[in-house]
Amino acid sequence: MSRKKIVIALGHRALGTTLPEQYVATKKTARILSNLVEAGADIVISHSNAPQVGMIHTAMNEFGLGREKYTAAPISVCSAMSQGYIGYDLQNAMRAELLKRGIYRPVCTIVTQVMVDPYDEAFSEPVKIIGRLLTKEEAEREERNGNYVTEVEGGYRRIVAAPKPQGIIEIDSIRALSDLGHVVIACGGGGIPVLAQGVDLKGASAVIEKDYASGRMAELLNADEFMILTSVEHVSVGYGTDSETPLKHISVEQAKQYIKENQFGANTMLPKVAAGVSFLEKGTGRRVVITSIDKALDGYLGKTGTIIE
Amino acid sequence: MSRKKIVIALGHRALGTTLPEQYVATKKTARILSNLVEAGADIVISHSNAPQVGMIHTAMNEFGLGREKYTAAPISVCSAMSQGYIGYDLQNAMRAELLKRGIYRPVCTIVTQVMVDPYDEAFSEPVKIIGRLLTKEEAEREERNGNYVTEVEGGYRRIVAAPKPQGIIEIDSIRALSDLGHVVIACGGGGIPVLAQGVDLKGASAVIEKDYASGRMAELLNADEFMILTSVEHVSVGYGTDSETPLKHISVEQAKQYIKENQFGANTMLPKVAAGVSFLEKGTGRRVVITSIDKALDGYLGKTGTIIE
Repeated sequence: MSRKKIVIALGHRALGTTLPEQYVATKKTARILSNLVEAGADIVISHSNAPQVGMIHTAMNEFGLGREKYTAAPISVCSAMSQGYIGYDLQNAMRAELLKRGIYRPVCTIVTQVMVDPYDEAFSEPVKIIGRLLTKEEAEREERNGNYVTEVEGGYRRIVAAPKPQGIIEIDSIRALSDLGHVVIACGGGGIPVLAQGVDLKGASAVIEKDYASGRMAELLNADEFMILTSVEHVSVGYGTDSETPLKHISVEQAKQYIKENQFGANTMLPKVAAGVSFLEKGTGRRVVITSIDKALDGYLGKTGTIIE
Repeated sequence: MSRKKIVIALGHRALGTTLPEQYVATKKTARILSNLVEAGADIVISHSNAPQVGMIHTAMNEFGLGREKYTAAPISVCSAMSQGYIGYDLQNAMRAELLKRGIYRPVCTIVTQVMVDPYDEAFSEPVKIIGRLLTKEEAEREERNGNYVTEVEGGYRRIVAAPKPQGIIEIDSIRALSDLGHVVIACGGGGIPVLAQGVDLKGASAVIEKDYASGRMAELLNADEFMILTSVEHVSVGYGTDSETPLKHISVEQAKQYIKENQFGANTMLPKVAAGVSFLEKGTGRRVVITSIDKALDGYLGKTGTIIE
């Protein structure tokens, strides 16, 4: 049986929040993903980074305040740091788990930049929350510095724009290694958001939704499958109502209809289903699986999860 | 003329210290390295990270003190973050500079772990200074926490061990991309130091000298040339004396003799010359060039620098 190329997007549950949590979580995640490799998948892994980039952004910016030689670190730089940090734990855990099973495959993380469009309407309405809870005074200071904040329970939090991914700058290197059977970790945290200025790329004050970036990567790699591993086994319609129904096998048309009916949460299931639809519409013979990380193998084998074909 | 594979180790001058400095310095560095690509070199780039990892280590550890959800970030994690951060600026600058010259080559950074030996004698005598100046009270707290400090002018600084690099964990991915002509940035900061525990790798409290790690990478990639770009045009013997003599072409035997005579500074030229000798002794037809970053092209063309053959 020929091997299948799969792009796997990992959510927060796969990584945890703090340093010790991440160290433990990535080991569990590696066991789950190694099951897929054993079952015949060539995998390219992407992941979210919200708590990690928030932690780094807070430390790098607030510790440095007023200190000589410390300059505020923009979100793009913090995103690059988070890719190094998460990639290190994840590549380490994957390598060890595969070796334990007698599988020798090189594993590595590629620092990935993802191009966004300066005219993306997301820039006029930042929605992505990052970092810690702020006091009213701190929030006002942020706004004076040209940053955006939003009021939340108990205070304020910083928000940045969440534009859609366009190109993936390092896609040729990702493809080359994946085609050789290496396990590649890329597009971490949705990628480092960059804007084109001529041939230069400039960091954008943004966070790219990792589901959209991962879907775009699956498209550009011409993957057989795009798998989104989250905290629930199925995507549901009528979520939270008496008529809540988990979705099993659905078509692209059904998925688009549900999106039109606003069946999915804007920050939870909508990006997953929409990214899946976009991937499926740009090729043939492709499949999307959305399921919980604990059910990854069953999802891969078509036994559970929400499968869009 | 066939292309030559070169591993280039960049020192502090190529990167600067603060965020804005690094952004500017990497653009200049990219122009210099692109000259080498135009002259026929396939390049793999490594770099130092002392100010960057110090900044990250200080921010991640001191900001987090006593705060919920912030855990001390060990030096290995900070090293991984610094690879993401420096790699991002450097790959960005290289890509743009090559495109400006009409050269299309993928450029990427690989998060690199470098294995060290737990019995390396360096662990019993930490010497590598990292992070900011500490007060006496802070230094005492560090020591109570099991860390090492050393007294310096004006206070104390943290120190960690500098063991020798053994294996480079991601070498197969680095080699694969380099063989395809991609520009690869790897082993940043000497690599993330790890110790083997069975098949697992565990972060070590250490910093690997980037010259040794880069030389090891050049060996493992079977590079034609190992180039160390620093702040002076030549390595000298009799440094600081009336008989100071810049070295131009020397043999491996001469280099070893000078090392025996303690001609080189333990933290400056010694690791460069010793790493070069090690690279040369493990293969044939190889060359080592040590020169200033501003003279890189002339060094590559054999017109200046200290050349060991």
